[in-house]
Amino acid sequence: MRTLGFIGLGIMGAPMAAHLIAAGHTVHLHTRSSIPASLLEAGGLACASATEVAQKADIVFLMLPDTPDVETVLFGANGVAAGLSEGKTVVDMSSISPVATKDFAARINALGCDYMDAPVSGGEVGAKAASLTIMVGATDNTFAALLPLLQHMGKNITLVGGTGDGQTCKVANQIIVALNIAAVGEALLFASKAGADPAKVRQALMGGFAASRILEVHGERMVNRTFKPGFRIALHQKDIGLALAGAKSLGLSLPQTASVAQLMQVCAAHGLEQSDHSGLVQALEIMGNHQLGAAAPSHTA
Amino acid sequence: MRTLGFIGLGIMGAPMAAHLIAAGHTVHLHTRSSIPASLLEAGGLACASATEVAQKADIVFLMLPDTPDVETVLFGANGVAAGLSEGKTVVDMSSISPVATKDFAARINALGCDYMDAPVSGGEVGAKAASLTIMVGATDNTFAALLPLLQHMGKNITLVGGTGDGQTCKVANQIIVALNIAAVGEALLFASKAGADPAKVRQALMGGFAASRILEVHGERMVNRTFKPGFRIALHQKDIGLALAGAKSLGLSLPQTASVAQLMQVCAAHGLEQSDHSGLVQALEIMGNHQLGAAAPSHTA
Repeated sequence: MRTLGFIGLGIMGAPMAAHLIAAGHTVHLHTRSSIPASLLEAGGLACASATEVAQKADIVFLMLPDTPDVETVLFGANGVAAGLSEGKTVVDMSSISPVATKDFAARINALGCDYMDAPVSGGEVGAKAASLTIMVGATDNTFAALLPLLQHMGKNITLVGGTGDGQTCKVANQIIVALNIAAVGEALLFASKAGADPAKVRQALMGGFAASRILEVHGERMVNRTFKPGFRIALHQKDIGLALAGAKSLGLSLPQTASVAQLMQVCAAHGLEQSDHSGLVQALEIMGNHQLGAAAPSHTA
Repeated sequence: MRTLGFIGLGIMGAPMAAHLIAAGHTVHLHTRSSIPASLLEAGGLACASATEVAQKADIVFLMLPDTPDVETVLFGANGVAAGLSEGKTVVDMSSISPVATKDFAARINALGCDYMDAPVSGGEVGAKAASLTIMVGATDNTFAALLPLLQHMGKNITLVGGTGDGQTCKVANQIIVALNIAAVGEALLFASKAGADPAKVRQALMGGFAASRILEVHGERMVNRTFKPGFRIALHQKDIGLALAGAKSLGLSLPQTASVAQLMQVCAAHGLEQSDHSGLVQALEIMGNHQLGAAAPSHTA
């Protein structure tokens, strides 16, 4: 059994590392603040730096907030790169820039090590339940070797392609989710302000080409006005930022994604960025001076 | 059995009227050009004007291209209104403005007649197979009385609400479908230009919150580049025009819908408005100078 390392033990990383420890692996741990006591009690081993984790482990997992954090932990002072030796593997499960990921992978490969990007979706609930969706960019061999470890943390695990393609897939996912939320928001708000019952419209649309997981789940949240997170607008805003920065570096125009970022800004301007992302409809409500489901002028006439 | 009338015998109206005739109803027919011979052979009765249809029929169905056509046929010279008498019913199955529909209904109600808006989705295929989705705005009584007739033409039939709400629901449907197509287009094109395989990305996304009928059906058309209609961009453009005109009259801002109308204009500018609406991705391809699935720069390096 190969020795593992896990760096970044926040809301997501802590339960993910716990699953690896529970499966019987030796797991060396490091995080920016303090290592949760529960992980040490379960048998996890504390390290003073990312370098120490990389020296002691064969496979080093990262679960960090954003691209600069991954760069610092990999290549900064006391970083992973300084502790790696040939034949080890770095698995980045953070959601970060696909473009930067290809650069990081090349620099890790140059040290004689493998690199896998494996961002997840499913949030804190999925991390705790070991039911995360995992989108993997790696070689076939690396994927085959690490799949049993990923299966301790997730259920729907896909090898999308080579290095960076896991991050690319995650960005594509976040684009569709944001734009589908905006689509449902505009459609239901139009129906509501025109005097129709948005709940009935949603129901009628579920049977046809407008059907989606977002219409089902987030559409219901809009109709019931349950905007407690869930997945916060502020976090989705970060992912849409990755999409727009990636598109800029690729020379690609994403007009709908650029526009949805502005709707998120409207939410932020009104202190709503901690709402669930279904609460994006509140931006449209503010702009249109009409609350979803409120009696429309045509009904009061 | 009440006597029927059907006005507007185009690609959609002709097969719909044929189903009513085949069910054994007496159906008085009128259309702007000439009545299809097959309908007369089946037993349909030709009328010289919309007025004559309204004089002879108890229930008058309309299936016309756009709002001004419905207004002319109802209230213009030799129109339906001139031939109606108390207790008759007008059923507009065209896809037109919800706002205008409420006005038309009030003017028909003033003559002592009922009004139902019952726009459809499912296209020519659905019309021929009698499998149309029908979104109805009407009173409960009118809906109950006419449901058996609608069932000769469609399968998924919903009473959304009062007069106009059927049209409102149809517009909401077309908003979501257009925006979900754009969402899938931007996500897959991002993935492709970043060097990932859009077919694999689509597959990976089908299991999560990005899942939709559009990702399934139109996403596959994009990946395979099968843009033969289907439902033409030019027709969807008309529906998005209804959404934006409706939003303007309601005092509502629909930024994503407004932006998708511009992508449709890009298609029109390049002679692509007769493509299937999944071909909207071609606007993004032109703008981003990258064809979906083409080898990306990162792969040729």
